[in-house]
Amino acid sequence: MKKINGGVAAPLGFKASGLYCGIKKSKRKDLALIVSERLCDAAGTFTTNQVQASCVVVNKDHLRDGKAQAIIANSGNANCMTGESGFENTRSMALAISRILGLRKKNVLVASTGVIGKPLPIKKILTAVPQLVNDLDRKGSEAAAQAILTTDRMPKEIAMEFLVGRRKVRVGAIAKGAGMIHPEMELHAPKHATMLCFVTTDAMLTPSALRDALDRAVQKTFNTITIDGDMSTNDMVVVLANGMAQNKKIVEKTKDFRQFTHVLETMFLSLAKQMIRDAEGATKFVEVFVKNAASREDARRVSKSVARSSLVKCALFGEDPNWGRIAAAAGYSGAHVDPWKMTLHLGKEPVLRNGGRVKQNANALNRVFAQKNIKITVDLGLGKSSATAYTCDLSTNYVRINSAYRT
Amino acid sequence: MKKINGGVAAPLGFKASGLYCGIKKSKRKDLALIVSERLCDAAGTFTTNQVQASCVVVNKDHLRDGKAQAIIANSGNANCMTGESGFENTRSMALAISRILGLRKKNVLVASTGVIGKPLPIKKILTAVPQLVNDLDRKGSEAAAQAILTTDRMPKEIAMEFLVGRRKVRVGAIAKGAGMIHPEMELHAPKHATMLCFVTTDAMLTPSALRDALDRAVQKTFNTITIDGDMSTNDMVVVLANGMAQNKKIVEKTKDFRQFTHVLETMFLSLAKQMIRDAEGATKFVEVFVKNAASREDARRVSKSVARSSLVKCALFGEDPNWGRIAAAAGYSGAHVDPWKMTLHLGKEPVLRNGGRVKQNANALNRVFAQKNIKITVDLGLGKSSATAYTCDLSTNYVRINSAYRT
Repeated sequence: MKKINGGVAAPLGFKASGLYCGIKKSKRKDLALIVSERLCDAAGTFTTNQVQASCVVVNKDHLRDGKAQAIIANSGNANCMTGESGFENTRSMALAISRILGLRKKNVLVASTGVIGKPLPIKKILTAVPQLVNDLDRKGSEAAAQAILTTDRMPKEIAMEFLVGRRKVRVGAIAKGAGMIHPEMELHAPKHATMLCFVTTDAMLTPSALRDALDRAVQKTFNTITIDGDMSTNDMVVVLANGMAQNKKIVEKTKDFRQFTHVLETMFLSLAKQMIRDAEGATKFVEVFVKNAASREDARRVSKSVARSSLVKCALFGEDPNWGRIAAAAGYSGAHVDPWKMTLHLGKEPVLRNGGRVKQNANALNRVFAQKNIKITVDLGLGKSSATAYTCDLSTNYVRINSAYRT
Repeated sequence: MKKINGGVAAPLGFKASGLYCGIKKSKRKDLALIVSERLCDAAGTFTTNQVQASCVVVNKDHLRDGKAQAIIANSGNANCMTGESGFENTRSMALAISRILGLRKKNVLVASTGVIGKPLPIKKILTAVPQLVNDLDRKGSEAAAQAILTTDRMPKEIAMEFLVGRRKVRVGAIAKGAGMIHPEMELHAPKHATMLCFVTTDAMLTPSALRDALDRAVQKTFNTITIDGDMSTNDMVVVLANGMAQNKKIVEKTKDFRQFTHVLETMFLSLAKQMIRDAEGATKFVEVFVKNAASREDARRVSKSVARSSLVKCALFGEDPNWGRIAAAAGYSGAHVDPWKMTLHLGKEPVLRNGGRVKQNANALNRVFAQKNIKITVDLGLGKSSATAYTCDLSTNYVRINSAYRT
């Protein structure tokens, strides 16, 4: 497999566009469209938050037949907790696209991200739809990637190409996410963060292979990141597969399936890491690797607990190698932890062994924490399972950004 | 019942002291002692963190017979994750007090709070013990209250007097807690935060009544607060009852028992609120009241989830009534939540009803969030259970304090 250009419009038969329709005060792009020229097999994973934006509820309904052909997304307004009219607005967005493109309404998916509880300025969106469709282009991925951003500084897109048999197959994706990031998504079911990711592919797969690959890749990637521990009402990853590469159909439990899943994982991990690097106020990229846990669930719990800890994240921001906070966060994770068997490393420097600190080289530790990329390794010494979580530091800037988000 | 002066030394037969022994760089008091002239019935609740400081482990052992007579506590060092020598140091502290006072070692309890993973300067402590004992005084509570503080700005003490039959009975307490506060304590078992609370009483109770009253009062008070969501390795609330009031022995399921429990709850709630008001960087005192939940556990989960949310707390700091974040935090709490049945009030202003926002008086909302004390009411509309959590905002100052705690 190799990286290619073109983002979501790299796979055969896909176009994209993005423009400013009037939602954002900043006048940055706020409306995006992705369209396939053929009807696609489609699958989605959605937030497990019990408070869900209307787009999440509507998409789950639209995806019941496993088909879709277009995605319209706006930023600057989450259209969540906006009552019945919020649902009507989501359906209006789908309807407008379906009419102008001659599709069935239920084959259009909708996504929104931004402030919760404010009425969506639907007229501005509907007025912009003709221009949005007119702008559809094979080179439109970057504009679409920009149009889904909120507090993100950088657009996030990626595309890859690989062989299935002798056929070239392509996968493209765009994503956003900078705050309210603690995704735990399930197939057609809810978990937490506003992160959005739209994936396109010209590969041919069975519907169950598509769903299965998506679920596996999301669990291993997006669901391992946390920025602030707050699960969004709007998270979603949706994938459209139009089959135009005409490869031999990919089915589960084959080498091709494993390869397709691996490509998704690679792309999602890249996007997830981009989200962390671009997180609100972040100055550090942090990998929490937990190994030798009694179970995979325990490893996951410890990694997420350490990655979510405000005190650990403040210490990272302050470049203060206060590793006791890491041990404490492991201890309250709910996983089985034995302090006498736990070992901790900051970078390659050991700090904790046999229930007590290892004689430390203070300069070496300070050097580790002065870096932009920091790896924390927690060896629980209790079994053979491992897991990784990705996070960032908690900075004064994060607080500043989020204390004046709405105003 | 009425408030009286004297803190932990207000009940008959108790004395206290506090001094600077050399642990804190700030040269503030860092060593405290509380002693009863008679052997006491004693009970304790401890952190449920699986990584526990040696004082927690040792105290649970010392409390197995339900007896104690003295508490020695240091601040500036948590003596946690300090290996075998950490345990030896904890035992040395108990031993030094037991020798000089002629007590059995297991009747001395020990508490430590401060940085994790740094060797305790035990020599400084042992050298100061004779002076500490010499300073014991009926007026020593405030010095002891000061000596257990870490980043707290204000000492926290309280005492009350009430009648059991015709006998006057007194209860006194001192406490600390400013960061790493998310206590979930259990009787002789672990939960999260460094908060310490030492309680004295001259009441006569059966050992089981003492334990039961303590557990009920802690669950309803200290376990409802969160400052940063980080559970400490050192949390404890311990109570010593010397019976010197010679009241009719209090047994469970009586009016006197209910009154004693009510006094503890009143005192603990006052101390818990003092902790929130004195929380690291806090500018707001916030009460999250959840009502009409399907179960008490659901009410508790929603209240703690909202109180822990970094985004809600940033909005509070910024005085930005971004109530969508409250709804989102309720939704990911794990409790049963139906967005169409939920109602939200900020202060007395309704903001959410029937799945959508209530037409808002922006000025009134801004006025609510401009206050120092803010009440958030979440009505889940699903049952009859309620719960309250107390928290503060997340400020740039919190991050500043915790990014340079160790250095």
